[in-house]
Amino acid sequence: MKNRHWILEARPKASIDESCFAWRESEIGRPAEGEVLIRNRWLSFDPTQRGWMTRDTYISKIPLGSVMLAGGVGEIIESRHPHFESGDLVLGGVGWQDYVITDGTDYIPIQKIPAGTPPNLALGIFGFTGLTGYFGTFEVGKPRAGETFVVSGAAGATGSVAGMIAKIQGCRVIGIAGGARKCDWLIAQGFDGAIDYKNENVADRLRALCPDGIDVYFDNVGGEILEAVLDQIAPRARIVLCGAISGYESEELPPGPRNYMNLVFRHGRMEGFLWMEYAKKVPEATQDLMRWHAEGKLVQLEDVQHGLENAPKTLMRLFSGANMGKQLLKLDDADG
Amino acid sequence: MKNRHWILEARPKASIDESCFAWRESEIGRPAEGEVLIRNRWLSFDPTQRGWMTRDTYISKIPLGSVMLAGGVGEIIESRHPHFESGDLVLGGVGWQDYVITDGTDYIPIQKIPAGTPPNLALGIFGFTGLTGYFGTFEVGKPRAGETFVVSGAAGATGSVAGMIAKIQGCRVIGIAGGARKCDWLIAQGFDGAIDYKNENVADRLRALCPDGIDVYFDNVGGEILEAVLDQIAPRARIVLCGAISGYESEELPPGPRNYMNLVFRHGRMEGFLWMEYAKKVPEATQDLMRWHAEGKLVQLEDVQHGLENAPKTLMRLFSGANMGKQLLKLDDADG
Repeated sequence: MKNRHWILEARPKASIDESCFAWRESEIGRPAEGEVLIRNRWLSFDPTQRGWMTRDTYISKIPLGSVMLAGGVGEIIESRHPHFESGDLVLGGVGWQDYVITDGTDYIPIQKIPAGTPPNLALGIFGFTGLTGYFGTFEVGKPRAGETFVVSGAAGATGSVAGMIAKIQGCRVIGIAGGARKCDWLIAQGFDGAIDYKNENVADRLRALCPDGIDVYFDNVGGEILEAVLDQIAPRARIVLCGAISGYESEELPPGPRNYMNLVFRHGRMEGFLWMEYAKKVPEATQDLMRWHAEGKLVQLEDVQHGLENAPKTLMRLFSGANMGKQLLKLDDADG
Repeated sequence: MKNRHWILEARPKASIDESCFAWRESEIGRPAEGEVLIRNRWLSFDPTQRGWMTRDTYISKIPLGSVMLAGGVGEIIESRHPHFESGDLVLGGVGWQDYVITDGTDYIPIQKIPAGTPPNLALGIFGFTGLTGYFGTFEVGKPRAGETFVVSGAAGATGSVAGMIAKIQGCRVIGIAGGARKCDWLIAQGFDGAIDYKNENVADRLRALCPDGIDVYFDNVGGEILEAVLDQIAPRARIVLCGAISGYESEELPPGPRNYMNLVFRHGRMEGFLWMEYAKKVPEATQDLMRWHAEGKLVQLEDVQHGLENAPKTLMRLFSGANMGKQLLKLDDADG
């Protein structure tokens, strides 16, 4: 059985291009005792993967020559593992390939998708993305009703979830995104304001929209926008560090915010987090996310591309900002 | 009666020099109803004053042409204020001058020094300096016994207090300071390690001295040392933002730490504070500071210069690192 896959061929220096990856085809074997054979159906694309390609972060960097790592959903077609059987839809770190043989204990462990949950939602608002928005907002940002909550990458996968959750929490929510199409979506979704960083002066707009200061900032982008926010924080502001995509394609780590000492003058806090730290609270979080979705308060914004051969191009969409919402790739031979 | 004083003549671009100030002599009047006339005895010099000269921080910048602002201690020589009488030793925002007339409601309100407290300690370990070290350590850093606590500017006024308090709290304390004389003092004072940033590679030394990571970092300096610390933080590290003196003499705000996203990978937190926020806890804090001093666990490290005419030079000592501990200036005509 032929397995088409993309390996990490070279570490990107600055921007990712297709030469970072190489297409390979090989035979795939049979699962050993304790392993499963999965046919992949959907792949998830996330800015954090840019870090995995380049440096040790919260996981060791991907070794050169090995399959590009990504979360995804697949169907088990042969199981020699006691917890899984053929036909199970599972989520895990399946990588950029048609098939994977695994014992399920990789960095993203294999787990069954709850019956009735569509794979795209399992990878999106009910998955890592939703949990990141949920725990970042509640556990780190701790917004109170009536507070001003600003989110960047607001029309991205995690940012959109964070913003919608802050609305549910009763905050005034301002989203920052690139382009009119994204900003229109934010307003249609009920955000109280939208800033188009590609066509507006973010600092001026923040001053106008947040005259009493910003209480919580959920940051997905870093860079100049983080500086503009730091100039407008309210006393006791909380900055939720989730991502810094504006700098991910720099060859060197870009400078941090020059004005971080505003955290002193206004007793602010910048705090990072990874959703896995809150593993014990995942069942409760998932219940909340599913209920809000059923009530229409939380929707999945997504961009679906097609075909394993387009995996590198799909990853690149994240950094050009082409995607709106969760970036997914549906594999050609998948049908659900 | 002649009042000699220094006014802020020009805002410093980069380094402070004497041309930022101008010497003036004028007649001083008599206090009006509700005011006091104070003869100044001691002036306090603090890195934060560099900020007051240049930009709005937690207070509005000092207006050009007005007396250079500084905390200090003086003796009331005439009072038309119900709470004060002649002979009282008071602490407040007295400025660089021989005399001051005030109603006591300036940025640093006038308050009596408790009987028996020496002025130098009232400005040092029992004053704003001590309270900054105390609240920063306990309220923001929250060190637990056995944790690794790193402090920069460790032979400075605030840093030395923070480090000694962390020792009292049962931490392993590593101090970072410039030069062998300062590092020797740290070790003699009971610090578990000292790093001489002028003669050693801070990143290498932090890795060697803190192999399990840094739990709390009390930062007085910012810049490259903050970056080196961020590379070595332990999971759930707390970074207490107190100062960033390495950048105070830059014409533009220098870049923030490039690797601040380590706060994400290790769920760290950077938080600023100002001691005034904890005003309600000052009596309790002062009691602790005085008890530790009586027990010999907290000492005042200080550098005393003399004469109002030397005020600009004394301020400059902070930025060349000439001072060890609290920088004070005793006025010529003072005798206690």
